[in-house]
Amino acid sequence: MAKINENYLKLQAGYLFPEIGRRVSEFMEANPDKKVIKMGIGDVTQPLVPSVVKAFHEGVDEMAKAETFKGYGPEQGYAFLREAIAKNAYQSRGVEISADDIFISDGSKCDTGNIQEIFGHDNKIAICDPVYPVYADTTVMSGKTGQGQPNGHYEGIVYMPCTIENDFVPELPEETPDLIFLCYPNNPMGTVATKEELKKWVDYARENKSIILFDAAYEAFITEENIPHSIYEIEGAKEVAIEFRSFSKTAGFTGTRCAFTVIPEELVGYDSDGNPHKVKPLWNRRQSTKFNGVSYPVQKAAAAVFSEEGKKEIAEVIGYYLENARIMKESLTEIGYEVFGGVNAPYIWVKTKEGVTSWDFFDKVLKEANVVGTPGSGFGPAGEGYFRFSAFADRESTIEAMDRIKNLK
Amino acid sequence: MAKINENYLKLQAGYLFPEIGRRVSEFMEANPDKKVIKMGIGDVTQPLVPSVVKAFHEGVDEMAKAETFKGYGPEQGYAFLREAIAKNAYQSRGVEISADDIFISDGSKCDTGNIQEIFGHDNKIAICDPVYPVYADTTVMSGKTGQGQPNGHYEGIVYMPCTIENDFVPELPEETPDLIFLCYPNNPMGTVATKEELKKWVDYARENKSIILFDAAYEAFITEENIPHSIYEIEGAKEVAIEFRSFSKTAGFTGTRCAFTVIPEELVGYDSDGNPHKVKPLWNRRQSTKFNGVSYPVQKAAAAVFSEEGKKEIAEVIGYYLENARIMKESLTEIGYEVFGGVNAPYIWVKTKEGVTSWDFFDKVLKEANVVGTPGSGFGPAGEGYFRFSAFADRESTIEAMDRIKNLK
Repeated sequence: MAKINENYLKLQAGYLFPEIGRRVSEFMEANPDKKVIKMGIGDVTQPLVPSVVKAFHEGVDEMAKAETFKGYGPEQGYAFLREAIAKNAYQSRGVEISADDIFISDGSKCDTGNIQEIFGHDNKIAICDPVYPVYADTTVMSGKTGQGQPNGHYEGIVYMPCTIENDFVPELPEETPDLIFLCYPNNPMGTVATKEELKKWVDYARENKSIILFDAAYEAFITEENIPHSIYEIEGAKEVAIEFRSFSKTAGFTGTRCAFTVIPEELVGYDSDGNPHKVKPLWNRRQSTKFNGVSYPVQKAAAAVFSEEGKKEIAEVIGYYLENARIMKESLTEIGYEVFGGVNAPYIWVKTKEGVTSWDFFDKVLKEANVVGTPGSGFGPAGEGYFRFSAFADRESTIEAMDRIKNLK
Repeated sequence: MAKINENYLKLQAGYLFPEIGRRVSEFMEANPDKKVIKMGIGDVTQPLVPSVVKAFHEGVDEMAKAETFKGYGPEQGYAFLREAIAKNAYQSRGVEISADDIFISDGSKCDTGNIQEIFGHDNKIAICDPVYPVYADTTVMSGKTGQGQPNGHYEGIVYMPCTIENDFVPELPEETPDLIFLCYPNNPMGTVATKEELKKWVDYARENKSIILFDAAYEAFITEENIPHSIYEIEGAKEVAIEFRSFSKTAGFTGTRCAFTVIPEELVGYDSDGNPHKVKPLWNRRQSTKFNGVSYPVQKAAAAVFSEEGKKEIAEVIGYYLENARIMKESLTEIGYEVFGGVNAPYIWVKTKEGVTSWDFFDKVLKEANVVGTPGSGFGPAGEGYFRFSAFADRESTIEAMDRIKNLK
């Protein structure tokens, strides 16, 4: 008798974005004349930049001729891309990460989920609250939790609340976790971690032999000087951290699909007798066995992000989104909201007014301003009373959305 | 303390293709003047066909303009591709599979590995011997086996030997498995299953509430009329089978990456109380949570495989490889070998002469004919005394390789 993975039955049905979709559709059907502006889901809107498009086409052309045709590529990714990343994303910032530590994949969502496969089911996981839902859901699927609770938490996960009260900085948990998910610049809060804060986590992980799963998908949006772009800027991090990065938000690859994961040679996990084992060969084995590399033309397109021309073009697009964020932050502050994020991240995290829940605010903004955002409580109970706006809309829509919200009664 | 997944430590190190690579490199370094012909790994050599290239470029162009740019697509794949598959790969052959049953992915290797995530660790797995190594390796990684044994088998997996003695047709196992991997047309043996043989398996699975994981990656190579192209041609299969298909060998997508998995609405697995649960929503949840869809231009390229022009072009390429297979089969038969496969599959499965092991034959063919194949024993102990040649080389190399082998002493 084929038995299902019963952990899936623990997953709570009410996933955030389908519920948003349902409410938006309902509103649009009832009000077909209204122009709804979507600032909910974190998806980009600006096209691929010219250098990337050119390289993408070249990659396709190579696939069209027997002499340049590429069959199976290395499961870890082509050396030209791994080397470009090592050089441009790390070594140029003084961080010693080699091409061999970098694994190209088709998405950070995949990697942050799949990474749990190389760790045992008896690990205790810590995540922030509010948080990107994939960390918790994949923890449940992998069998590391008990049942879901009415507030959306799962038994067995260590939650670290982030609210105004602690400046959105998670405190070291009372119960020691084995794997710690951190995301900076943060989704959904748009906040960043200073070097001192990250050092606190790295030291904690070293002390407890824990591993930090560091999601840096929004790294390209960092504008302030002293904010670390990589966890490996912290001394000792290579022994205790895996870093996830993506071309999705950096270069508009949400529909093109390319990302990478960094696992330094030094990183170790432990067997049940407490013996250390290098983690990189485990991930290498996982990827070689269950993955067949990223489409060649896509890897070629991704490498163009690091060309001189590519860098300039990408910087312009990032600047465009950050200017959106600035406009949003200014507008919302002007009308009396407490607003966080938006300086080093494409997300604006707004405190709703006293007594107004996240979903109340969602409904008001949808019905009266015809703008879609994301209720903070959808990211976890500590997000109640907050609201996320994404800065990925186009400029015109961004300005119009803010005007409409300003004129709300 | 971060604990590793100790099941990975059970994986046997000596993976087949690295060992082949090692011996080939050693030979080539020692004999730099020899032209080595590679017929080992099952990778295609002919470029993408013109219709596919055209659609691929169009997809890239859409990503270059804001009006046609695509961000996140559906995790299950775009409707245009799912519908083209349902219509052309199934409905046109009288098999009722709907677009909604089809999940687009970046590779069958990924899907045949990842599928185990939605099933419990207490399932007993059956695989053929010889077999594509991924089924066993991912079974080990998922924690369903004991230790590896000296013959390469793992404790807890049910092995079904396929040799000349049983016409390469696996017998129903004595111990009842819960999940049964079948691959037709077969890799590595190049054999196919008749309707009667598949019906035997479907009936067996229905009787035992087992699920068949049917790998049909080589379906496009079927030439004989009565051979089923899909397991769903068998009555009742929709209740007990998942089918995996790929554009890799069909359309030369090994480096472009696109495949799909079919999970019919009717398919059920069971919880520990024996209650049935539909499997499709579990896979949908897995894919929605841990996967972000296939690159849009790649999906657009894949859909072109089903255009009128695309079908003709693809048929030519498949014909080219099958003509290679015919030449190989004829040449090897002529010099006295017993040869199997090659009629409905791009693989030739050769019985080595009495007393010659698979690796003996590998070394002889490499050193004396400078041709690389794959030792049958690398696919499992029942493959000892067999050898696999792939028909994916170009025509000229294929003919030359056979000439050299004919002239061996």
